[in-house]
Amino acid sequence: MSHVLDLIIKNAKIATASDVFMADIGIKGEQIVMIGSHLPEANKTIDAAGRVVTPGGVDAHCHLDQPMPAPIKMADNFETGTRSAACGGTTTVIPFAAQEKGQSLRDAVKEYHRRSDGRAHVDYTFHLIVSDPTPTVLNEELPALIAEGYTSFKIYMTYDDLKLNDGQILDVLSVAKQHGAMAMIHAENADCIEWLTRRLEAAGQTAPRFHGHSRPMLVEREATHRAIALSELVDVPILIVHVSGREAVEQIRWARSHGLQIFAETCPQYLFLTAADLGIDNSYLGAKCICSPPPRDQKNQEVIWNALSDGLFSVFSSDHAPFNYESPEGKKPGGQEVAFRHIPNGIPGLETRLPLLYSEGVLGGRISLTKFVELTSTNPAKAYGLHPLKGTIAPGSHADLVIWDEKPITIQNSALHHAVDYTPYEGIELKAWPAMTLSRGEIVWDGQNFHPRLGKGQFLSCGKPTLMTTGR
Amino acid sequence: MSHVLDLIIKNAKIATASDVFMADIGIKGEQIVMIGSHLPEANKTIDAAGRVVTPGGVDAHCHLDQPMPAPIKMADNFETGTRSAACGGTTTVIPFAAQEKGQSLRDAVKEYHRRSDGRAHVDYTFHLIVSDPTPTVLNEELPALIAEGYTSFKIYMTYDDLKLNDGQILDVLSVAKQHGAMAMIHAENADCIEWLTRRLEAAGQTAPRFHGHSRPMLVEREATHRAIALSELVDVPILIVHVSGREAVEQIRWARSHGLQIFAETCPQYLFLTAADLGIDNSYLGAKCICSPPPRDQKNQEVIWNALSDGLFSVFSSDHAPFNYESPEGKKPGGQEVAFRHIPNGIPGLETRLPLLYSEGVLGGRISLTKFVELTSTNPAKAYGLHPLKGTIAPGSHADLVIWDEKPITIQNSALHHAVDYTPYEGIELKAWPAMTLSRGEIVWDGQNFHPRLGKGQFLSCGKPTLMTTGR
Amino acid sequence: MSHVLDLIIKNAKIATASDVFMADIGIKGEQIVMIGSHLPEANKTIDAAGRVVTPGGVDAHCHLDQPMPAPIKMADNFETGTRSAACGGTTTVIPFAAQEKGQSLRDAVKEYHRRSDGRAHVDYTFHLIVSDPTPTVLNEELPALIAEGYTSFKIYMTYDDLKLNDGQILDVLSVAKQHGAMAMIHAENADCIEWLTRRLEAAGQTAPRFHGHSRPMLVEREATHRAIALSELVDVPILIVHVSGREAVEQIRWARSHGLQIFAETCPQYLFLTAADLGIDNSYLGAKCICSPPPRDQKNQEVIWNALSDGLFSVFSSDHAPFNYESPEGKKPGGQEVAFRHIPNGIPGLETRLPLLYSEGVLGGRISLTKFVELTSTNPAKAYGLHPLKGTIAPGSHADLVIWDEKPITIQNSALHHAVDYTPYEGIELKAWPAMTLSRGEIVWDGQNFHPRLGKGQFLSCGKPTLMTTGR
Amino acid sequence: MSHVLDLIIKNAKIATASDVFMADIGIKGEQIVMIGSHLPEANKTIDAAGRVVTPGGVDAHCHLDQPMPAPIKMADNFETGTRSAACGGTTTVIPFAAQEKGQSLRDAVKEYHRRSDGRAHVDYTFHLIVSDPTPTVLNEELPALIAEGYTSFKIYMTYDDLKLNDGQILDVLSVAKQHGAMAMIHAENADCIEWLTRRLEAAGQTAPRFHGHSRPMLVEREATHRAIALSELVDVPILIVHVSGREAVEQIRWARSHGLQIFAETCPQYLFLTAADLGIDNSYLGAKCICSPPPRDQKNQEVIWNALSDGLFSVFSSDHAPFNYESPEGKKPGGQEVAFRHIPNGIPGLETRLPLLYSEGVLGGRISLTKFVELTSTNPAKAYGLHPLKGTIAPGSHADLVIWDEKPITIQNSALHHAVDYTPYEGIELKAWPAMTLSRGEIVWDGQNFHPRLGKGQFLSCGKPTLMTTGR
Repeated sequence: MSHVLDLIIKNAKIATASDVFMADIGIKGEQIVMIGSHLPEANKTIDAAGRVVTPGGVDAHCHLDQPMPAPIKMADNFETGTRSAACGGTTTVIPFAAQEKGQSLRDAVKEYHRRSDGRAHVDYTFHLIVSDPTPTVLNEELPALIAEGYTSFKIYMTYDDLKLNDGQILDVLSVAKQHGAMAMIHAENADCIEWLTRRLEAAGQTAPRFHGHSRPMLVEREATHRAIALSELVDVPILIVHVSGREAVEQIRWARSHGLQIFAETCPQYLFLTAADLGIDNSYLGAKCICSPPPRDQKNQEVIWNALSDGLFSVFSSDHAPFNYESPEGKKPGGQEVAFRHIPNGIPGLETRLPLLYSEGVLGGRISLTKFVELTSTNPAKAYGLHPLKGTIAPGSHADLVIWDEKPITIQNSALHHAVDYTPYEGIELKAWPAMTLSRGEIVWDGQNFHPRLGKGQFLSCGKPTLMTTGR
Repeated sequence: MSHVLDLIIKNAKIATASDVFMADIGIKGEQIVMIGSHLPEANKTIDAAGRVVTPGGVDAHCHLDQPMPAPIKMADNFETGTRSAACGGTTTVIPFAAQEKGQSLRDAVKEYHRRSDGRAHVDYTFHLIVSDPTPTVLNEELPALIAEGYTSFKIYMTYDDLKLNDGQILDVLSVAKQHGAMAMIHAENADCIEWLTRRLEAAGQTAPRFHGHSRPMLVEREATHRAIALSELVDVPILIVHVSGREAVEQIRWARSHGLQIFAETCPQYLFLTAADLGIDNSYLGAKCICSPPPRDQKNQEVIWNALSDGLFSVFSSDHAPFNYESPEGKKPGGQEVAFRHIPNGIPGLETRLPLLYSEGVLGGRISLTKFVELTSTNPAKAYGLHPLKGTIAPGSHADLVIWDEKPITIQNSALHHAVDYTPYEGIELKAWPAMTLSRGEIVWDGQNFHPRLGKGQFLSCGKPTLMTTGR
Repeated sequence: MSHVLDLIIKNAKIATASDVFMADIGIKGEQIVMIGSHLPEANKTIDAAGRVVTPGGVDAHCHLDQPMPAPIKMADNFETGTRSAACGGTTTVIPFAAQEKGQSLRDAVKEYHRRSDGRAHVDYTFHLIVSDPTPTVLNEELPALIAEGYTSFKIYMTYDDLKLNDGQILDVLSVAKQHGAMAMIHAENADCIEWLTRRLEAAGQTAPRFHGHSRPMLVEREATHRAIALSELVDVPILIVHVSGREAVEQIRWARSHGLQIFAETCPQYLFLTAADLGIDNSYLGAKCICSPPPRDQKNQEVIWNALSDGLFSVFSSDHAPFNYESPEGKKPGGQEVAFRHIPNGIPGLETRLPLLYSEGVLGGRISLTKFVELTSTNPAKAYGLHPLKGTIAPGSHADLVIWDEKPITIQNSALHHAVDYTPYEGIELKAWPAMTLSRGEIVWDGQNFHPRLGKGQFLSCGKPTLMTTGR
Repeated sequence: MSHVLDLIIKNAKIATASDVFMADIGIKGEQIVMIGSHLPEANKTIDAAGRVVTPGGVDAHCHLDQPMPAPIKMADNFETGTRSAACGGTTTVIPFAAQEKGQSLRDAVKEYHRRSDGRAHVDYTFHLIVSDPTPTVLNEELPALIAEGYTSFKIYMTYDDLKLNDGQILDVLSVAKQHGAMAMIHAENADCIEWLTRRLEAAGQTAPRFHGHSRPMLVEREATHRAIALSELVDVPILIVHVSGREAVEQIRWARSHGLQIFAETCPQYLFLTAADLGIDNSYLGAKCICSPPPRDQKNQEVIWNALSDGLFSVFSSDHAPFNYESPEGKKPGGQEVAFRHIPNGIPGLETRLPLLYSEGVLGGRISLTKFVELTSTNPAKAYGLHPLKGTIAPGSHADLVIWDEKPITIQNSALHHAVDYTPYEGIELKAWPAMTLSRGEIVWDGQNFHPRLGKGQFLSCGKPTLMTTGR
């Protein structure tokens, strides 16, 4: 017998980015079709029993199976990455198709499809990384790719193999403006980092903890101010990724109070880690927490919490960059303990992103439940042209849903589903974890077990960003 | 035959404070019970035909039938006020039960119920005005009234008959903190206004336009800073009403960037009027636009628009304060043109609030549609403990809805439904007006005609404010 | 034989507020008449031997023999006060002629002349304290007194017996504007202090250290912002006295960056004391350091040092307010340990002001020698219309000079010359102390002994303030 | 007969950076030896007759006979430049010895001595321009030159032939820190200018006025923020030259309020010219006012005046960069009207600097007389290690003096003494001009005529900067 609905999630405390209310969710195929009470019968019913149900997380900043300079290698591919995402409540991931200098951008995209297509358990799309903005890239490839649904790209102000100079950034931002794409910027001053790194090395200060010394807050602040100025010159919104320090936060506040559309993202590492996690002595264990920008001081965490709560940050992402601590070839390339300059930057975080923020943010009384949904799902979907298909619970949206169990749980890497041999959050006590994750109406995580959907995760062609509160 | 649903609004482009999506809205009795496609049959169907449907407006700051010092009299009572509200898309109004000095607060509430109960076409609740915080008021009446659902109150820093000194404000804010109420503050420095007014009078400068000279931006800025400091001292959120000038805006920005929960409201007059509307010569016509704080300069309007768009303002209200221009006893008390000090402060705006913001804000490209809903309906409902019964389109909410016609229309007082003999917005060309307003599932405005619901508008007991993005 | 010069200070490293240079100083009678090399012969020569010679200090904020509410009594009168000043390098003092509410301002001045005339060892003038700005005071007494050389007055925003409300402050500032006087403001919010004090008392928290809790930084910040606004409204410069906290400093910075002429003074207690000096337990010894505003935290000291060095502060004064720790009737009225509310506010500091700043500021590398002279002598003289007769080393100026010994010395109250039974700086190790102080060409302190000049200290009639860098 | 004194300037209203007082000035040879009344007799007496006498101006930023990329040529050499300086009251000039890329810095200095030695009428020294910071330059030449008295150098952030990247700037600043030199920075973002210039050129917008469009305020603001960050990283003071726009001013304010030693210079063009002087149509006459940064809007002038008055700016220089309007080869290279990119940047201003600021600043009531001396003479001398030999009126200082006539005079290029065929200030009405300029005790300008001292102007070896108000 064919019912109108395939599945009902009943007794749900539904949270969107603006509202919290009790209702049942009616699903037909992959989509939500009805929300309310007295829904028609369905083939199957799941009782949320009054628990909170949020839209599936959208992790708009993660790295999976991204080609690295030899011999470095990422630990997660699309299969393990999306598995890990699903078990932590994330149902859409947006990793990066990175252009190598000299490479065609189109080829970078093709290559990345080869790595992802058919290998994902949940949906995904790509940001582009533009590292070589040749006239062909600027005038042909990029406009064409935007038109095809690759509507966001990342610009690096640091890393020798990726960084653009100010003139190149202006050129790339002009394309963003002309074609309505969203430009993301990694804002750290490359010259300052290099200068500091050399001084540290000259002084023999190469242990992991000196990574933090090589990238003090002002290095981020300067680049943030510069990025804002370039955005202002071109008159185009930008989104500054993984903002870490209070000094950069102040720059962004300044920009917004002047009417500039500067959006910002932060990550769990700036709420839950500090510089001390890079090591207080010269222990190599600090390599586990090396990421850029680095974690800051304890007091800075409060600044980031406040900026999450009061609307400065639009997006909360993991910046998942998975490298094994033990070889091969992650934090100890060739099995060796190396100078901090040579340690790959990045930490894993796809699976823990939502539970960390839900536990300490929502249940810790720092952000509201609606703000949680906005930061982790709705806004990322809007920023990258996926809303309202993703990012909310509404008729017409995909049935990407998370039912939350509010109960104590301790983070242990052994219980996580990525392919990385550690988590920087080992031992942290949480107050909640997904009891169930649905992707397009299918259970992919039931609170105990992962239910593979290999190949069912689909590539999403993106529309124009809709994050801007102005209609322009 | 009894259907599940009484009414379906079909083909609606539903806008909440976070999402915009196409769906049908199913209504049973006074409530929304279902949203989606393929809804079950209903007794009645209204075809929105793809038009935008928003939650009914919540006007959280308006004055109706409020006792005034003799001989001044408000032009609108609950009957005409709520009629006007409904015809402009507003389905909940929150006027003020004002305590006179010496009066029991309880009596003020009782008296105001006498003026409102049975006389409203749409729903309403009250803010309290505390003008005499005696120990009885602070320790008994106010806590009891909060417990009964009067969970917000207004504090004046100006007007001789209403203003509190800093010590009294601290006392009242302490009650707000202890009992979880929302304190609203009218922030202008009374002494500065009096000092300036006397100087203007001494110089014979008593025409309406000098009202603006008597309340320059710094008078508001100072009081705003002071209100913030008092809030900080008590550690309790406040909401600063009718913020008008860029200098006050900067103070609020400063406060929020320091983690203080300072909420702010602005009004149409600060987007659509300027000081020039108070008269550029000594014409008495400027009296029509006398309100406090006064409209500012043209450039200031941009600051207010930006602050609406970027999240500084949480609430957009009318501050409807209805006085006839011609007697009796409004802007010309006893039929006389009087010195600006004696002209009652306030302008009408209940009916035009939403169409003005929808036209120039949403359709003018200055704010998104979700931001419009947030400012005019969702946030006011949250701020005063009415959400999600009011302020959104969700199962379980009242069926308070507006269907929007996007078409040119010119504001003419003759077409408005208040009892005031002018509108300050006469002649402004709009791009939209409600095609239909529903209150608790009943059509109260059909785009042409008002459908009276006298006495069906109900008093709402308020819960605790839920505007705070922190859980604290 | 009659020489051109009576006295030469030779081999002096002369420091003014702008220059440091080697020269001899030629003195005739009470005045400097010549500076240079190859000066004509003199009756007497003092060899500075290359040591630094600065203008005698001008302490523009001190309290001597000021009538107090019974039973409180100041420990220093003009005789002991000016003795102490001279031994610490200060040759001009400006205490306060305070109007009692109800008293004629003229009478207050007369009364204060009775207390001072003939009793001073060094020169002095008065600030007025206006506590009761009646029409007679505003329209007659104050203008007349300004014309007679009483060109500065202090306005209190706190203390019940002294404070003015905002309207009164505007009235008094108007007189300052009209007659070119300098208004000084004590900026703390009285209502906030009273509210906090009552709460502390209700909780039994009355030990001296709670004095600091009753006056947190925001209490000063708020009043500072308000004072700035009132100054802006009247369009007249003001000088905010004894600025203590970083929050107030920020307000003043903001004002100056907006072109407002807001001058500021700070005092040694905000550089050398912290809240911990008020007691970390409930010991009554903290009463010795009770002053208003209270000392802040350690980090705040750096803010004050920076604001001294970069020009935010124009004046560095002692705010000497001398009360004995043991009775009669100082910090222990009637010999009793009383609640902090009843402990007289103020600490002694006339004698230690210059040595503290010279030691830690100049020799500690925090400020330049020219800045030292500017802050302690030139600017106070300019601010109150005494420059260039006082405040510099130039032909035509009084021969008020200090020769500095740069050598270690420990502050001990037993070695000081005031009549107070303690110093809050007991035990602090200094790097310098005056080797000699001259007042009008006479040695009043020779590094070991005080040389009385009782009655030779003269009352100075003040001119218009010349601190403003604008010519307006 | 040999008197103690050679020359007395009597009845002088002497102004230093801190004091104004009446006295006679006694001069022996090239130096001031005595200041006071009743000076001994002298061979010669000049009666200042109560007029203001200031120290001779120190123009710390000017360009004379500096090698330019062919075919461009500066109009003034040392002979005409110092002549012009003297006639406008300036007795010390500090032009630039510029290193070409590839050139030894030592050779650049030698070459510049060839151009200057024996050709100056008044004293001079050099700043270095470091355009190629090779290891030899950084480790050998620069330290050696600093030790020899070349204690300041300029860093360009724009101009292809001069600019350094951020890493190079850090290297050069490190030398400044290590050896106690003063680094000056031209702060404009080169990439932004190039990007804008190309867009303007692509749109055919090449008239002189588009020069201003190619360098909007944000281009200066960004570079200023970056320069501050680099200074902060190295922990060394810098002096930002020719600051023009309010946005840059705000950055510097921010830095100083955070305790950073960021000094700043501005120039007459930012007080007396606006963007309109670059042409409001496409007239080529605007080329006369092309300089970098370009003049801003009218309202910006107020910001610069305020920043002069309140201490943000330490130094007021001309940035004299002399190019003829007609060929050869100034503003019309080869006699051609060229696109703005090819017009040499710079305007003449050595002679008019002091009269403009004295007239509009001091006599116009915007700055005090002491501030005038500080900005134009004392601080430049301190900033570059010439004080107190230069920059003040004190025994031991050179007798470089200006007597001021306060009388109306109109600027006419025909009356100026530079070799440039125009002045951008033609027709401006002044209120004062030097009645006399003395250089080392010799009259070089008598109010009517120039008295050549060719070859008597001497090169000055500079000491360490003493501008810092901290002792560090």
